[in-house]
Amino acid sequence: MNSADLGRRVGVPSTALFTDQYELTMVQAALKAGTADRRSVFEAFTRRLPEGRRYGVVAGTGRVLDAVENFHFDDEMLAFLRDQRVVDTATVDWLADYRFRGDIWGYPEGEVYFPGSPLLRVEGTFAECVLLETVILSILNHDSAIAAAASRMSSAASGRNLIEMGARRTHELSAVAASRAAYIGGFHTTSDLAAGFRYNIPTVGTSAHAFTLLHDSERDAFRAQVDSLGRDTTLLVDTYDVAEAVRTAVEIAGPELGAVRIDSGDLLLVAHRVRQQLDELGATETKIVVTSDLDEYAIASLAAAPVDAYGVGTQLVTGSGHPTCSMVYKLVARAESADPGEPLLPVAKKSLGAKTSRGGRKWAARRTDAYGVAEAEVIGTGDVPAGLVDRQLQTELVRGGEVVAREPLEAARDRHVTARAGLPMSAMQLSRGEPVLPTEYV
Amino acid sequence: MNSADLGRRVGVPSTALFTDQYELTMVQAALKAGTADRRSVFEAFTRRLPEGRRYGVVAGTGRVLDAVENFHFDDEMLAFLRDQRVVDTATVDWLADYRFRGDIWGYPEGEVYFPGSPLLRVEGTFAECVLLETVILSILNHDSAIAAAASRMSSAASGRNLIEMGARRTHELSAVAASRAAYIGGFHTTSDLAAGFRYNIPTVGTSAHAFTLLHDSERDAFRAQVDSLGRDTTLLVDTYDVAEAVRTAVEIAGPELGAVRIDSGDLLLVAHRVRQQLDELGATETKIVVTSDLDEYAIASLAAAPVDAYGVGTQLVTGSGHPTCSMVYKLVARAESADPGEPLLPVAKKSLGAKTSRGGRKWAARRTDAYGVAEAEVIGTGDVPAGLVDRQLQTELVRGGEVVAREPLEAARDRHVTARAGLPMSAMQLSRGEPVLPTEYV
Repeated sequence: MNSADLGRRVGVPSTALFTDQYELTMVQAALKAGTADRRSVFEAFTRRLPEGRRYGVVAGTGRVLDAVENFHFDDEMLAFLRDQRVVDTATVDWLADYRFRGDIWGYPEGEVYFPGSPLLRVEGTFAECVLLETVILSILNHDSAIAAAASRMSSAASGRNLIEMGARRTHELSAVAASRAAYIGGFHTTSDLAAGFRYNIPTVGTSAHAFTLLHDSERDAFRAQVDSLGRDTTLLVDTYDVAEAVRTAVEIAGPELGAVRIDSGDLLLVAHRVRQQLDELGATETKIVVTSDLDEYAIASLAAAPVDAYGVGTQLVTGSGHPTCSMVYKLVARAESADPGEPLLPVAKKSLGAKTSRGGRKWAARRTDAYGVAEAEVIGTGDVPAGLVDRQLQTELVRGGEVVAREPLEAARDRHVTARAGLPMSAMQLSRGEPVLPTEYV
Repeated sequence: MNSADLGRRVGVPSTALFTDQYELTMVQAALKAGTADRRSVFEAFTRRLPEGRRYGVVAGTGRVLDAVENFHFDDEMLAFLRDQRVVDTATVDWLADYRFRGDIWGYPEGEVYFPGSPLLRVEGTFAECVLLETVILSILNHDSAIAAAASRMSSAASGRNLIEMGARRTHELSAVAASRAAYIGGFHTTSDLAAGFRYNIPTVGTSAHAFTLLHDSERDAFRAQVDSLGRDTTLLVDTYDVAEAVRTAVEIAGPELGAVRIDSGDLLLVAHRVRQQLDELGATETKIVVTSDLDEYAIASLAAAPVDAYGVGTQLVTGSGHPTCSMVYKLVARAESADPGEPLLPVAKKSLGAKTSRGGRKWAARRTDAYGVAEAEVIGTGDVPAGLVDRQLQTELVRGGEVVAREPLEAARDRHVTARAGLPMSAMQLSRGEPVLPTEYV
């Protein structure tokens, strides 16, 4: 990893085997046929948004840049490929020298997207570009799914605090990427220490029922927690009886008690009762954190409840019903040689109706109306119309194999706020609907 | 990783930060209160199966053992915890020496489970057990979700070949674990090279539309592939016109052509036509591989089609609608000191109706009827009834911190076949239903 300045490593030494076998066998066949170095353009895009969703959120771009940089085959991997006869010796030798030396342009992280948006455009020789397909899609499909769910939850929460707590509900390393994507989508903190370590996302914690059950009484447990973590801590009040727990909590921590957490029951009702009780006890500044299978709909339904923060787990890290984005990575143009002077010819699959795609190297721009609100995602293959030049969405990410667009996570997080705010208001509706922008091909 | 004999490393040096912050702050508070070393029993279980599912499949146990062995805090991690003031200095010092030294019993990998089944029982001091909560749940929740989907697909495929192709649809490291879980659930091969490298799962590959589009004609592409990969390769025949592609494929590779892949269109219809055409061309041994958004229902609906292998991606790695298993890890009993002579007292959350659990250290057994078919999952906290002693489900996995139950992946895969075969026939129905075994508490 070469992004130590943006966080710490919780990772893998090489990303080269996060790859479907056919990427390597295609390289082998193309090397033998003399077509491996044909100049090629691949694009990552999705044919549709998940059903009912009104916009997508680009996330994972920063991780893609890490993955491209770390895509190299070490000796042990090469030995594996040789011993298992995954590819022939000539290809193993070629892979030993592999580094991506091409160019990548794409939607910057945090931007919104629509069906057909060319999210990433990868250019180089066929062989160097095709190898990156699997890992690029893994990252974009996962991270963008989580960011989209996070963005909806963040709309629903209307500025209240959102804590990402889903680590236990997904693969341990998905969880780290999910925290990152959730942060981009508008979450404020995470419970996942690895996400704090790797990405500098602020980490928080409360306590579990086990901590209360460990002690001889709830009183002992609360005292132990306050003694060690201070009055500003968050006490979990639903192990035995909520009203009694709240009374005990304020008795022990005083009105300076940081927060109480409610993790079961009718959250709307219980939050109201707990708020009233806290206020009566003088703990008017003590906050209420709710958790328990929340999703964007549950968050929205608690808008009228006196809740200060939502802890969200399962539904966040599984994309709230849509754990992946169906992005694909397609060859859209290629030349007949490696010669930069050779013209790029658009190519596209034609058979069987479904799954066809549009050939040609694409640009994308977002047209706005007289009020500055986005009105269309415009995609084309020729010259960019003058009125759209300033509204182009793709930025340069990698030039000649060098990453040129690293940025702090906050930049992507801020960009998402701006991009979402530029969409028609109906983008924020949680109900099912069509994409809020039409995609126009010119 | 200490399991080099079972595969190679694609991993992380330490699993200790795949942990929610509150696990560490609870340890801090318990250390200060003098309760951290109380002898404790935690159990991982689920309160319900995903809606409509008839059985669950235990997967991830082997990865849990790796995670427990690799759960230690290195200097960089300790510095992070200290600098970010996640916990106090006394706790950082305690963590520096942390190794799990307790015992773990559990359902062996590949076994089936039901609501309440105590899948993992972790015993030791409170502090050493509570720290493992997050990573244990991450692994079991993810891997078991994939294995359950794989098992249903494997029932539906009735012995036909199943290829795991989902790497691009999920996080790049989830993908590796998903391949592993799918293999346990009955898949035969994977496209994911990292899964082959790490777990010795057989890897396979075909080719993509990009390979055909790279070349000046489909004929050139097929020739390039056959020249390099041999006649036994799998040619993708739906880039332009399927009938023409099949004709060209057999012309180039001869009747020894390994297989053709169909990735779009009405698979039932197209498979029939392609089979007829292949047979007419004399390629009677050439196999047909279908891919394209398959799930267990699509696989079942293709039972009458002349299909030899199914490549499954999205729906497999996202658990076919249920990407996580809602497993929890609960303190069920604890003593009042670390003294092994001190009695274990059952404990359980009581508040607010939902989410309550049963206290006490549990055993589990599967009772069978006169025909040897399973009829109930029996769970108890006292002595095991004589008739069930031989039918107990938990096995010893870790003794005094040492892993004692490592096994090859094939053992878990074989165990699943046996366990599923022991269930009532209705377990194999794909339609929604109740768990096929009732859970009885004695």
